[in-house]
Amino acid sequence: MEISSLKELFEHELRDLYSAEQQILKALPKMVKAARSRQLREAMSAHLAVTEKQAARLDRIFERRGIKLARAKKCKGMEGLLEEGEELMQEEISDDVVDAALIASAQRVEHYEIAAYGTARSFAEWLEDDESVKLLQQSLDEESDADRKLSELAESSVNRNAAEEEEEERTPVSRKRR
Amino acid sequence: MEISSLKELFEHELRDLYSAEQQILKALPKMVKAARSRQLREAMSAHLAVTEKQAARLDRIFERRGIKLARAKKCKGMEGLLEEGEELMQEEISDDVVDAALIASAQRVEHYEIAAYGTARSFAEWLEDDESVKLLQQSLDEESDADRKLSELAESSVNRNAAEEEEEERTPVSRKRR
Repeated sequence: MEISSLKELFEHELRDLYSAEQQILKALPKMVKAARSRQLREAMSAHLAVTEKQAARLDRIFERRGIKLARAKKCKGMEGLLEEGEELMQEEISDDVVDAALIASAQRVEHYEIAAYGTARSFAEWLEDDESVKLLQQSLDEESDADRKLSELAESSVNRNAAEEEEEERTPVSRKRR
Repeated sequence: MEISSLKELFEHELRDLYSAEQQILKALPKMVKAARSRQLREAMSAHLAVTEKQAARLDRIFERRGIKLARAKKCKGMEGLLEEGEELMQEEISDDVVDAALIASAQRVEHYEIAAYGTARSFAEWLEDDESVKLLQQSLDEESDADRKLSELAESSVNRNAAEEEEEERTPVSRKRR
């Protein structure tokens, strides 16, 4: 593939994002299934709907710019992030920390998208493609929002539960030491 | 591997970050070499020194928590991100957009670290390990700072150069249309 202009680099970024979104659409339902708390399941299910909208926005950009998806390559970055998350879930991971582990994986995914949508929006600005800027900014805002919500969820309940379990486990050990 | 507590999940996160930093230490010199502008080369070289410090901070945390690195697994997420960056560099990419492409890759790497250091710091807080919180927060701040600097560099010069090149290329096309 030849990338000889900012326009072509922008198109490369868009195809990469499209592949990333498609991979997320496949992975998210498994993450929802693995989550223990109702709040996390709900947050992830809601993000699945958001991801579908984001993929549709990319479709609109492809259409208006006349980009063909035939040349789409699998996004290796997202592939690695999701593999890492799956690997973690395959460990013998106890119920108390599953949600904390899922949030850790999900935030890596969100941050990939924050970086990639930020880059694509910046390219669209330089190319003076206002409609694409608007669409990409919407997805970027949603990703930042999703990341913030996951942090709040982790702070408010998930890590607290995991830490309390920790505390309970620690008690018998210190008793033994006495 | 068994992960049955927040403490073990925290250690898993630290090992993952350590592997990520080691991979970045290998990849960054290649990115410095590929960069066209002096400012980007300087920014990436400076980040190489920062990365070494961050790896040393992780060493300190391992030491104080008595974590053995023998069980360290290769961080798949970072592996994918760096592979994606290398793949992009292997395309026939013109000089005018190389730096924009490098920044796009580097910001994905920074955002992985922002997510991972954020998670690790949050776990350390719940485990009331104040010294680790301090060390992880330092690295997190450095990563956010590096990401911001790359955005500024992209906005101030790199994308401008690429877009100007675009403009020059567009002119003969519109002439043809007349």
